[in-house]
Amino acid sequence: MIKKNLNFYAVILAGGKGVRFWPLSRYQQPKQLLKIFGNYSLLQHCFLRIAKLIAIENIYVVTNQDYFHPIKYQLKDLGFYLDNIIVEPEPKNTAAAIGLVAKIIFKKNKNAILSIFPSDHFIKREKSFLSVLKKALDFSRNNKMVIFGIKPSRIETAYGYIKASETSSNSFLKVYKFIEKPKKSIAKRLIKFENVFWNSGIFVWKASVLLEQIRKFMPRLYFVLCQEGDSLKKGWQDLEPISIDYGILEKSKKNLYVARFDCGWTDLGNWSTLDLVLKKDKNNNAIAADAITVDTINTTIWGGHHLIVALGLKDMIVADTPDALLVCPKEYAQRVSEVVEILKSQNRIEYLSSRLVNRPWGSYFVLNESKGFKIKIVDVFPHRRLSLQLHHKRSEHWIIVKGIATVTIENKIYKLKSNQSIYVPAGSKHRVANEQDKQLTFIEVQVGSYLGEDDIERFEDDYERHQEKKNCPHHPLMVIKNRKKDYLI
Amino acid sequence: MIKKNLNFYAVILAGGKGVRFWPLSRYQQPKQLLKIFGNYSLLQHCFLRIAKLIAIENIYVVTNQDYFHPIKYQLKDLGFYLDNIIVEPEPKNTAAAIGLVAKIIFKKNKNAILSIFPSDHFIKREKSFLSVLKKALDFSRNNKMVIFGIKPSRIETAYGYIKASETSSNSFLKVYKFIEKPKKSIAKRLIKFENVFWNSGIFVWKASVLLEQIRKFMPRLYFVLCQEGDSLKKGWQDLEPISIDYGILEKSKKNLYVARFDCGWTDLGNWSTLDLVLKKDKNNNAIAADAITVDTINTTIWGGHHLIVALGLKDMIVADTPDALLVCPKEYAQRVSEVVEILKSQNRIEYLSSRLVNRPWGSYFVLNESKGFKIKIVDVFPHRRLSLQLHHKRSEHWIIVKGIATVTIENKIYKLKSNQSIYVPAGSKHRVANEQDKQLTFIEVQVGSYLGEDDIERFEDDYERHQEKKNCPHHPLMVIKNRKKDYLI
Repeated sequence: MIKKNLNFYAVILAGGKGVRFWPLSRYQQPKQLLKIFGNYSLLQHCFLRIAKLIAIENIYVVTNQDYFHPIKYQLKDLGFYLDNIIVEPEPKNTAAAIGLVAKIIFKKNKNAILSIFPSDHFIKREKSFLSVLKKALDFSRNNKMVIFGIKPSRIETAYGYIKASETSSNSFLKVYKFIEKPKKSIAKRLIKFENVFWNSGIFVWKASVLLEQIRKFMPRLYFVLCQEGDSLKKGWQDLEPISIDYGILEKSKKNLYVARFDCGWTDLGNWSTLDLVLKKDKNNNAIAADAITVDTINTTIWGGHHLIVALGLKDMIVADTPDALLVCPKEYAQRVSEVVEILKSQNRIEYLSSRLVNRPWGSYFVLNESKGFKIKIVDVFPHRRLSLQLHHKRSEHWIIVKGIATVTIENKIYKLKSNQSIYVPAGSKHRVANEQDKQLTFIEVQVGSYLGEDDIERFEDDYERHQEKKNCPHHPLMVIKNRKKDYLI
Repeated sequence: MIKKNLNFYAVILAGGKGVRFWPLSRYQQPKQLLKIFGNYSLLQHCFLRIAKLIAIENIYVVTNQDYFHPIKYQLKDLGFYLDNIIVEPEPKNTAAAIGLVAKIIFKKNKNAILSIFPSDHFIKREKSFLSVLKKALDFSRNNKMVIFGIKPSRIETAYGYIKASETSSNSFLKVYKFIEKPKKSIAKRLIKFENVFWNSGIFVWKASVLLEQIRKFMPRLYFVLCQEGDSLKKGWQDLEPISIDYGILEKSKKNLYVARFDCGWTDLGNWSTLDLVLKKDKNNNAIAADAITVDTINTTIWGGHHLIVALGLKDMIVADTPDALLVCPKEYAQRVSEVVEILKSQNRIEYLSSRLVNRPWGSYFVLNESKGFKIKIVDVFPHRRLSLQLHHKRSEHWIIVKGIATVTIENKIYKLKSNQSIYVPAGSKHRVANEQDKQLTFIEVQVGSYLGEDDIERFEDDYERHQEKKNCPHHPLMVIKNRKKDYLI
């Protein structure tokens, strides 16, 4: 076991809205929180990976207020009660987010060395990743700044490129220049150089060095970071959203090094990158769905809830979810964000949320919503329970189909097993709990004149959601806004 | 009102399985029975159109045994109790089907003039259609045979072409030759001729003339048609499946005429023909779905149950249903039948049936089927009821969400209104009826170890389905086979 150096810190950037992975990701289910691979979300994978080198109490997650609770619950699910989830007053791109956390950490430890990680990467070879990371943390003690660079494997116009000033086989190469999102013809030439790398977005540097760079190149941000409370909040509002790459790195090449990073890294930036990490069939199709392909090649199919037939497709993406489907050629993958903008401008629910909604106690899936009624399948994890709650405008019919439910209605308690049902009249205080070691599943049929998720009054909650409008406990100036209420059951 | 000539007969061919319209059509929901346009199915549209000229008792429908009852109920829904639904012993293409009906009609009326219609066409200008039909029925009294011909409007390689031997402006032109499914280069040349037509598959001729042609050119079929009972059935088995075009028309050009037929006809042969009858947006997309298109042209989108986003598509078909999705370029539309063959060979339920199942009393939609439970939304028409039935292996929970249900469980009767529920234990005789003027809707949650639709014992049924294994009443030799039980609730 590695002895953890308490000057080493990690900052996970987890505020991304993952708009390019719609319809799999939604505003309320951003990419980093999705369980795309196995039982863990991308954020959980990232956290577990880093926690092998960095002490838990030195891992910080920075995000926006809407993702604070989901992140807290996801880390809790891993067994970690993280105190260091930092909520930005509002998203202002990476320079401000990283600066904010650097300031907070620097106050605690003047010798802190930060490693910065996007939360949505796929890294195949973890051991080699940890070894590079360890080297970089050591290397940066002498005020050096390190960017992790990936050897390009294809012509890619959506990435930033780094050219090193030397071609030696050293682990750390001095940075010569940055080329941001080059044209195809330029990218084609760039990838032939030995000393050209993709910018992975993973950085290592001392907190003091970073803050010094901010003071020098982003004085306005530095000034705001020196404020407290309302002044910080007010100053933050007027900050221009600038990435750390533009704001600092491109200007501060003096002590900047690129670390060779060969760990099977994939940036899950959009649908066309997903098939880099999925298995392929003999026609080079990446299929994560119940699908039949005929005369179809180089196509990515994501789905699961219904049969997908691809006939005569080439270089296409078919991304299907229970409430929304995307079909586009791979070369349009970057433009999925335009679709999300349209959905947002039309106030469509498909922008905000999918039909599967995760909760700290389990999840529910909306099977159908029609005039006057709504049907859900509700799963409750072992030994968890929903809040004690009440609805004014809807009654609920529950039919247990798996496990045993402990149901409280007003002051009575009922134990219900599979094939038993119970009626929860509108206006009655109620709660359902799973006190068993196995999952509980029940069908909920809601009947009423109004079926919005905001018709809920909470009296007690294991996840403190009945108090959720109070200040965020982790940074005194971050007030949780009135959140969209339909996010919560 | 037109006085109907009782020598005029109509034969609607309604045995097609509509495999090229999968996933909208399924084996149990063939194209002709689907309500693609408005409130009527294609068959119902066809029937109502013809009934304006032909006496109801002279309209015959020929189909296979699996579609007998659905067709009966669809016609009943129009208010017609048709005695003349002829069930072929097994499908043997159009020559045998038409010959069979011709024989039956000829026995009743030696002067019968038949008009033959596929059941899956779209005809825009009904008046002009009826006028041509009337003319053709009159024209064919002198032993002439008429094919309705369409002026080609595009290069089409999936159709049969007819070349007339004259270019006059007569309504009926002598047929010179047939060109079946020509190559693209040939089709391109053909459509430039004044005297070239598409074969619409609509024919008019005397029953006696047709039977004489069959005797001459298809002596084996003629021999079989002269048999009765088991001999006919046995002979039928060995018939080669041949279309009327190949079997008779191409050989018998002596009295054959093509009728100019300009009524806004569309053969709904496959997905790429559908957009000929759908409205287009400014980018020439035909959209019958909740869809958002970005940079998309000439694309057909069919759906309804969830949002479809088309980004960067060109000349594509996206056909979506709750349990199956098809994505293909338009030029692959003819090959959808290959997909259906694959589904059939894999015994997939998506070959057989969709999630929406129509019944004579209403319909049900399967929302979810999981291990141990199944959820349906059940709609019951006013003044209809399900059979009195019993399930051995499943219990049912019903929650009324619209209308009033009259529920019988064993010997008790309950009246239930919206937001009331009832439990139907396994093994109990039960029935649900809608005795009101408005629709009844309830949610059914089935719980049990086995949830197949064949776990049903029927005691009484308004639609005689409890006796459905007896002989078909309309042709003594056609025995209804043990039907796939999951077709019936």
